[in-house]
Amino acid sequence: MSVKKVVLAYSGGLDTSVILKYLQETYKCEIVTFTADLGQGEELEPARKKAELLGVKPENIYIDDLRDEFVRDFVFPMFRANTLYEGVYLLGTSIARPLIAKRQIEIAKAVGADAVAHGATGKGNDQVRFELGYYALKPDIKVIAPWREWTLNSRTALLEFAEKHQIPIAKDKRGEAPYSTDANLLHISYEGKALENPWEEPDEDMYTRTVAPEKAPDTPTYVEIEFEGGDPVAVDGQKLGPAALLTRLNELAGANGIGRLDLVENRYVGMKSRGVYETPGGTLLSVAHRAIESLTLDRGAMHLKDEIMPRYAELIYNGFWFSPEREALQALIDNTQKRVTGVVRLKLYKGSARVVGRQSPNSLYRLDYVTFEADSVYNQKDAEGFIKLNALRLRLGAMAGKQ
Amino acid sequence: MSVKKVVLAYSGGLDTSVILKYLQETYKCEIVTFTADLGQGEELEPARKKAELLGVKPENIYIDDLRDEFVRDFVFPMFRANTLYEGVYLLGTSIARPLIAKRQIEIAKAVGADAVAHGATGKGNDQVRFELGYYALKPDIKVIAPWREWTLNSRTALLEFAEKHQIPIAKDKRGEAPYSTDANLLHISYEGKALENPWEEPDEDMYTRTVAPEKAPDTPTYVEIEFEGGDPVAVDGQKLGPAALLTRLNELAGANGIGRLDLVENRYVGMKSRGVYETPGGTLLSVAHRAIESLTLDRGAMHLKDEIMPRYAELIYNGFWFSPEREALQALIDNTQKRVTGVVRLKLYKGSARVVGRQSPNSLYRLDYVTFEADSVYNQKDAEGFIKLNALRLRLGAMAGKQ
Amino acid sequence: MSVKKVVLAYSGGLDTSVILKYLQETYKCEIVTFTADLGQGEELEPARKKAELLGVKPENIYIDDLRDEFVRDFVFPMFRANTLYEGVYLLGTSIARPLIAKRQIEIAKAVGADAVAHGATGKGNDQVRFELGYYALKPDIKVIAPWREWTLNSRTALLEFAEKHQIPIAKDKRGEAPYSTDANLLHISYEGKALENPWEEPDEDMYTRTVAPEKAPDTPTYVEIEFEGGDPVAVDGQKLGPAALLTRLNELAGANGIGRLDLVENRYVGMKSRGVYETPGGTLLSVAHRAIESLTLDRGAMHLKDEIMPRYAELIYNGFWFSPEREALQALIDNTQKRVTGVVRLKLYKGSARVVGRQSPNSLYRLDYVTFEADSVYNQKDAEGFIKLNALRLRLGAMAGKQ
Amino acid sequence: MSVKKVVLAYSGGLDTSVILKYLQETYKCEIVTFTADLGQGEELEPARKKAELLGVKPENIYIDDLRDEFVRDFVFPMFRANTLYEGVYLLGTSIARPLIAKRQIEIAKAVGADAVAHGATGKGNDQVRFELGYYALKPDIKVIAPWREWTLNSRTALLEFAEKHQIPIAKDKRGEAPYSTDANLLHISYEGKALENPWEEPDEDMYTRTVAPEKAPDTPTYVEIEFEGGDPVAVDGQKLGPAALLTRLNELAGANGIGRLDLVENRYVGMKSRGVYETPGGTLLSVAHRAIESLTLDRGAMHLKDEIMPRYAELIYNGFWFSPEREALQALIDNTQKRVTGVVRLKLYKGSARVVGRQSPNSLYRLDYVTFEADSVYNQKDAEGFIKLNALRLRLGAMAGKQ
Repeated sequence: MSVKKVVLAYSGGLDTSVILKYLQETYKCEIVTFTADLGQGEELEPARKKAELLGVKPENIYIDDLRDEFVRDFVFPMFRANTLYEGVYLLGTSIARPLIAKRQIEIAKAVGADAVAHGATGKGNDQVRFELGYYALKPDIKVIAPWREWTLNSRTALLEFAEKHQIPIAKDKRGEAPYSTDANLLHISYEGKALENPWEEPDEDMYTRTVAPEKAPDTPTYVEIEFEGGDPVAVDGQKLGPAALLTRLNELAGANGIGRLDLVENRYVGMKSRGVYETPGGTLLSVAHRAIESLTLDRGAMHLKDEIMPRYAELIYNGFWFSPEREALQALIDNTQKRVTGVVRLKLYKGSARVVGRQSPNSLYRLDYVTFEADSVYNQKDAEGFIKLNALRLRLGAMAGKQ
Repeated sequence: MSVKKVVLAYSGGLDTSVILKYLQETYKCEIVTFTADLGQGEELEPARKKAELLGVKPENIYIDDLRDEFVRDFVFPMFRANTLYEGVYLLGTSIARPLIAKRQIEIAKAVGADAVAHGATGKGNDQVRFELGYYALKPDIKVIAPWREWTLNSRTALLEFAEKHQIPIAKDKRGEAPYSTDANLLHISYEGKALENPWEEPDEDMYTRTVAPEKAPDTPTYVEIEFEGGDPVAVDGQKLGPAALLTRLNELAGANGIGRLDLVENRYVGMKSRGVYETPGGTLLSVAHRAIESLTLDRGAMHLKDEIMPRYAELIYNGFWFSPEREALQALIDNTQKRVTGVVRLKLYKGSARVVGRQSPNSLYRLDYVTFEADSVYNQKDAEGFIKLNALRLRLGAMAGKQ
Repeated sequence: MSVKKVVLAYSGGLDTSVILKYLQETYKCEIVTFTADLGQGEELEPARKKAELLGVKPENIYIDDLRDEFVRDFVFPMFRANTLYEGVYLLGTSIARPLIAKRQIEIAKAVGADAVAHGATGKGNDQVRFELGYYALKPDIKVIAPWREWTLNSRTALLEFAEKHQIPIAKDKRGEAPYSTDANLLHISYEGKALENPWEEPDEDMYTRTVAPEKAPDTPTYVEIEFEGGDPVAVDGQKLGPAALLTRLNELAGANGIGRLDLVENRYVGMKSRGVYETPGGTLLSVAHRAIESLTLDRGAMHLKDEIMPRYAELIYNGFWFSPEREALQALIDNTQKRVTGVVRLKLYKGSARVVGRQSPNSLYRLDYVTFEADSVYNQKDAEGFIKLNALRLRLGAMAGKQ
Repeated sequence: MSVKKVVLAYSGGLDTSVILKYLQETYKCEIVTFTADLGQGEELEPARKKAELLGVKPENIYIDDLRDEFVRDFVFPMFRANTLYEGVYLLGTSIARPLIAKRQIEIAKAVGADAVAHGATGKGNDQVRFELGYYALKPDIKVIAPWREWTLNSRTALLEFAEKHQIPIAKDKRGEAPYSTDANLLHISYEGKALENPWEEPDEDMYTRTVAPEKAPDTPTYVEIEFEGGDPVAVDGQKLGPAALLTRLNELAGANGIGRLDLVENRYVGMKSRGVYETPGGTLLSVAHRAIESLTLDRGAMHLKDEIMPRYAELIYNGFWFSPEREALQALIDNTQKRVTGVVRLKLYKGSARVVGRQSPNSLYRLDYVTFEADSVYNQKDAEGFIKLNALRLRLGAMAGKQ
């Protein structure tokens, strides 16, 4: 494959630095690096210095703060659906990949690059998510996935290559990390190595975003999250922008030991893998969004959303964010959120977040209909006809000899 | 409506005692009482005495221990689907109603009764669940729902009727209860009155099956639940029958403050209502069942189950347990459970139950496929073709001018 | 129920004339009549005269031509989903009811009426469709359904009432019609009496909109239907408004014996009924819309639409047009139709309409990808990786002892 | 790849004969040929002779009549679901592939082969269907797909190879066929070349299983199909085995010009393709099965089936017959078919098959419920409560300001 100019998703770490050199050597092409701040919690300027050191021209170094775009255009739309993959996973890694792919393609178009490259391996989901994004947004783009084509498939080979090419290696990166991680403002993930036995509980010192529930405060913390049109807009009465709001929720939940998840999941490429996640703020959002919907969303719309959610989650997990069917499902979801406005009160305590109150100017909850008191608005006798006609087909079935 | 003999679902409490008298007076018919032990935690013999006192013939008094049947034939099948109504509710009340209806009809057939009666009101779901069950199992049965037809619609009127007919009234029943409750081995529910404002947190002293998380032990409890073919069979290595197993889980979870749920739900009859539930053991089961599936269930089967689950939950909530579509969905669900066998390890701590390990003789998790090490079983280059063909339609769409 | 002013859906026929009188007598209220031209093929001015004759004030008589609104805002949106109820029925009656309800409520609001009335019986679906529309659009409206409350439940009683109140009776209405019918621009339906035995074929002389296939021309007719953004806009090159277009297709299909349907369907109120329908133009539209989608719609979007279609059809059949979930599904459907543009060529011949060609400026069909010739755009070797990774979970399942 | 013994799906035609030689040459391995009679309408003994001629040992030649197994275990189960891919396609090719794969693997196990080979190209669906079957049934099998690996990618190259290796070439195979076809008892397909322009109508002389509707008899043919438990068992009163029954229906429908389909479909490998199909008997079965269900199947079960059908069709189309999710869906489908018994009467006339009657001992159609006469079984007043409670959430929504 002949390549002129490639945009590399570049973290500044050892792996993508080796990839940078590998691309220079193998494809003899111009390299453009793209480093995004998605709230992973790392300084980005060192990535600039390292890229320069490795021979990337200053005008070819892109460093973008995408935190607000990430939360507003990817995280919030996904949470409108109460999205959970396989019943539990909040898709923290999956939802970040399309944004990286989108920005990489924007840069490729801007600089006239004919290729893009990423540092995901050939066994995981992320390669799929990146590449489906690339192809959907620029169908003639060339894609380079070094992990699928090179021979540096061991830690030793990688370090040797790095040393040979004078790539600086951080001291703490010499020894192999006990797990592979991915982080952004929504979550951090841990996979591999020490976690490969799904029967063994992870070490407490692995976690970075949440205190152990045992070490969380002995008194509960209450928090109120306000929603407008399906998205959160304020915490404890303070209006906050998307990234700032999620940051605030991360602090509150993390301090109370909330958001840890240990699971075995089904990868799109066909195998099961074990992952451990911390999604503190996202866990609060998930619980609270469902609660505000419980008060403001019509039953028919809610049950419809619940039924299409697993499909929607699967699409995001598998990397189909930029697909017509994800967009169509999003249209359905967004259509239901206009009136999802109000406040949810949560009680945070040593690892759990429980809803203890919800209110809304659009509430569909009507005390006059639900009360046990004698009432004028609801005629109990209507229930007889309701039941009789709902039962009719069951009765006809039974009469015809079914039972 | 002319009635000869009616089978009444009789708890022995004030309400159903009033109903008993009301039926005698209004329909001048023979009364058969049916009282079931579903694990609600009350003595049943007093119900017998009270029925006798109210003039029911001894041979017309049925008292049955249905705990094992309840858990084995209703609770466990439902949990095979990881069933949650509206994302959170474990359906503790809904799942008990069909069994009561079934047994009531069995008795009606046995004693030659032409009618059945229940004590559910005209505003709730339970009347629907009872009556759909009755009609599906005996399409020509007559149904009497006193709350929909009489005029005793206030506490005062009820007490007056009771006194007039010399129905004994327990002292603590004079004053009105602060909430309405329903209980069985799976859960206890609280509704109404003090809970009618969905913004107000319930009083701590309402709860009866769980300690407050704040008062739970300061050290975590670990529990191992063993599954065979989708159903739990042992706790911490000890084989237990269905009811005994759920009882044991209730103790463990209750002691650790686990299983409280405060929600606003959509009733089938059309309004929203606020309910608070305690489902200690069921919460553990729900979490653990999904975890054992995560290791043993194929992805395609799992995602299919996840997609049909909301419909299945809705059917149970709405009272369609004895419907052809619930049975068809059950056939689908059960078909997937053959290999869902293994052990899940949970960590219980102050209100939360988290999975920390799972193992199975049928595990589909394969370390050799998932490891980051160089491997022979999985060819990373396959991923390129996989992605390319999955991307093809997206690329063709983009080429045709979509993006 | 006290009523001041009622808007009656009035056809001018015997039944609704009797209802008019019944309302005057029973409720002593002011009557407003509403007669809609939905393309049923009847003169409307006689309805005006008859209403006047029965004492309705001229300013209280509403006669509206709703044909374009009907086709544009109800029929076309429904056809975007390739909607079929129970696999075959094009919902010709169901889709007209919400428009009638909507207009009736608009009039009620305009004239300050507190009630509406319709002539549907208590055993059918139409009462549900009318009334759900009424309640959704004006929740405090009073609804009068005379067939459910009066005692004129036989033909004789009806005729006696008419004679007693000097309601003119058309000669051909004296004898009872052999079937009940409903008609609009999309279809005509036949039900009841002579059709009540589902084993008997209907008489040929029942049909009014299609010639018998046996009497259709001996040479095929070709027709080209052009779509833009999912809706038909031209026939054989001639741009036509919604109602004119459907009228033209009715002529073409009717002349070729196309659009007859004989079925047993499940009513929402719980029983099965036998219906025979003629939907000539709609049958062409249905076939052609799917064909233009086959060329222009992405697979993911198409399969998603196919999966939600039965639910969407059920909602329309059951009368939930004005429900949040129908609107959410419509948002999904409409989102997919932007590029559904092009021409479909049909061959009409003695009862059948077959697609024989389709073309589009947005075609996703690419000869260079699909041809058997050696090609550069598609790498056949990609298929190996695609299959291998799709097979992986099946292989792991088989290895774990499934097969 | 090292191969010892390979089982080849062998038709006896030019392509698979070239593959046979190619395998011998390339892999130096023992060849086992497997030729199946699936009702494609060709003599099989010539395939035996040709295999012998090409050096296959007599004991390595397998020729099986699989017609009854094909129809009973694959076609009938699929028709129980009223299966249509993308709304129209009866899956005639898709449903045959899993059986071929299954038998090929059975032979591989019996003869100790370590590989299987097929003649499907790298652009189509069939390679996926074969190989997913192989891998699901024998996860360690080696798969050879010559079309994806050799260089004989033109007609000329293929013929040269054949001549060089003395493979006999039928005279009519010298010139290239105008389309590619696949045939079995359910259908014949045509693709490619002359059909590649989706705007052009196919030539009449392409069709082989149906007369042109224009040449079909001028008088209709009536046929009665009897079903038991969801499967057809008799035609016009004559009990027939599965293959004989489908053969009989093929004759009846073919003579009346029924079963032609011209479509553009979405392949699993990502592109759209145009196909023309003849499925005469299958078309009758499809129409008749839905009709017998309309009389005997409960509404809830029917609508559930309709909703899962597109997914089920997609699974079969994509090659996932031997997958846990197809099996789970089949369990659901089969669960509903117990009472689907009765007779359907069809009118066949010049290209169309219309239902004109249906009857069943299990009929759920009840004249006494549906009749317009005054009745005792159905209380029209029940409809009011039914509507009121179904409308309640819509009214509450409207009151809360939605409309």
